[in-house]
Amino acid sequence: MDVIINEVGLRDGLQNQPRIVSTEDKLVLLALLEAAGLKHIEVASFVHPKAVPQMADAEAVVGGLHLGTSQVYSGLVPNLRGYDRGVAAGLSEFGLIMSASSTFSERNVKMTLEQSYQACVEVIKACLRDGNRSRVYLSCSCACPYEGRIEESLVLDLARQLLDEGAHEISISDTIGAGTPNQIFDLTQPLIAEYGAGSVNLHVHDTRGAALAMVWSAYLAGVRMFDASIGGLGGCPFAPGATGNVATEDLVYMFNQSGIHTNINFNALEPAVAFAEKVTASSLGGKSMQWLRSQC
Amino acid sequence: MDVIINEVGLRDGLQNQPRIVSTEDKLVLLALLEAAGLKHIEVASFVHPKAVPQMADAEAVVGGLHLGTSQVYSGLVPNLRGYDRGVAAGLSEFGLIMSASSTFSERNVKMTLEQSYQACVEVIKACLRDGNRSRVYLSCSCACPYEGRIEESLVLDLARQLLDEGAHEISISDTIGAGTPNQIFDLTQPLIAEYGAGSVNLHVHDTRGAALAMVWSAYLAGVRMFDASIGGLGGCPFAPGATGNVATEDLVYMFNQSGIHTNINFNALEPAVAFAEKVTASSLGGKSMQWLRSQC
Repeated sequence: MDVIINEVGLRDGLQNQPRIVSTEDKLVLLALLEAAGLKHIEVASFVHPKAVPQMADAEAVVGGLHLGTSQVYSGLVPNLRGYDRGVAAGLSEFGLIMSASSTFSERNVKMTLEQSYQACVEVIKACLRDGNRSRVYLSCSCACPYEGRIEESLVLDLARQLLDEGAHEISISDTIGAGTPNQIFDLTQPLIAEYGAGSVNLHVHDTRGAALAMVWSAYLAGVRMFDASIGGLGGCPFAPGATGNVATEDLVYMFNQSGIHTNINFNALEPAVAFAEKVTASSLGGKSMQWLRSQC
Repeated sequence: MDVIINEVGLRDGLQNQPRIVSTEDKLVLLALLEAAGLKHIEVASFVHPKAVPQMADAEAVVGGLHLGTSQVYSGLVPNLRGYDRGVAAGLSEFGLIMSASSTFSERNVKMTLEQSYQACVEVIKACLRDGNRSRVYLSCSCACPYEGRIEESLVLDLARQLLDEGAHEISISDTIGAGTPNQIFDLTQPLIAEYGAGSVNLHVHDTRGAALAMVWSAYLAGVRMFDASIGGLGGCPFAPGATGNVATEDLVYMFNQSGIHTNINFNALEPAVAFAEKVTASSLGGKSMQWLRSQC
């Protein structure tokens, strides 16, 4: 009955923050997350530092990790060049991104779907060659800001192709928080049936309040791996309505109370939320955290 | 596939507000809710005006309704005396409350469970006699602030007894927002199987963020009637952590997007939220409303 929560606050959470968090502070936040029991953590993105200055210290962050423990650290890589940097830094698990929407891909990554697919496959093959693990984020799996709702069959076919190429994991990613619980069920259940629960992750943003409902629906579909971000960190402060990932604490609280083991201590997440608030100078915290704080 | 959303903002939402909203403003809010398509609305509570001064104008509010249309108005009644007031005012649908927790009942209503049960049954019988409709809210169905988690079998047995006495509807009520999706499933699915979907309502508060997950779980269990409060209005501003009902707009948005008909216009709820904010001098709005507003 266990679920795995993959903390992405250090990457997806911090990458759009106006304030650049220091490497030291990132490592303190990481230590607080680990103290609460988080075992799967995405620590950095190996993109070009000019594109995302918040991630310019990717090598330094990885250099500060205690590698070789049972902790599972991953890094996001945009292409083979980023992958090589990640490998050199010492990581062995990698996140890749490909959009399920061709318009989004062309406008935001300046690649056609086919080009983006080929770039992904290059990294997947490199992971297979090197004995590393790959997780492909299918962004805009539910909807695209330009195209609207994305056809489920298109997303499923892309996911199947990437898994067949050797991707270890697909993340159905509702990048703009526009999905619905039944859509998430329909996008995950077939993949679980065909490839097993070890091949499917869910990545949702809580833009319209339905994130936990989507998580629950995915759980019922058999999904056992979920991305989340401490305090709901994320989104872009310059783009109103672009909200963060589902808050780690809300996911942990709901699962723990439901008797589904996360192996994460809910109360121990409070210091991590407080520290993330301090270093980003923002107000964070899912509803469960607001409730916990009201009890003190 | 239709669901019924029963708006309780005018009662559960306003009853704990420090500011007393005028009858005229309540009727304006009601008109805005109806303009968005809400058909089922709890308009007032017939409690003693000294106990809940916010509801002292119950008769005046009902006097301002256009009764005899297809709109379904209900009033909360604590006992036979309140019921008689509600009937005299012209209502034919009534909410009753009974706690599933004996400690909560004894401390908050000064009645044992047995006394509270008998008071409920009196009103149920009066409704049957008069051709009126009764809905019994089983408060603390998931957990009690004093006792913690409530045994599901106790809640189910109480619900069955009340339905067998002639209650038209039972509302599984997570008063303190401490329930989980699987708990809600286990509390509603057996009642739906035994009594049908017309006999079970779900009433949840969003204290810990899992309200929509509980709503979705109840939907999967067969529940088709849900309480909600415009803007998430409710809770007690003097009691931190006592948050309001699940926001009507979040429920409407999730269901509408899922292809489940609420027959309510999501965008048209915005003026109702804005007006509720104005008259309560508070900041309201579920995440879906915050998203909608960020798009303008």
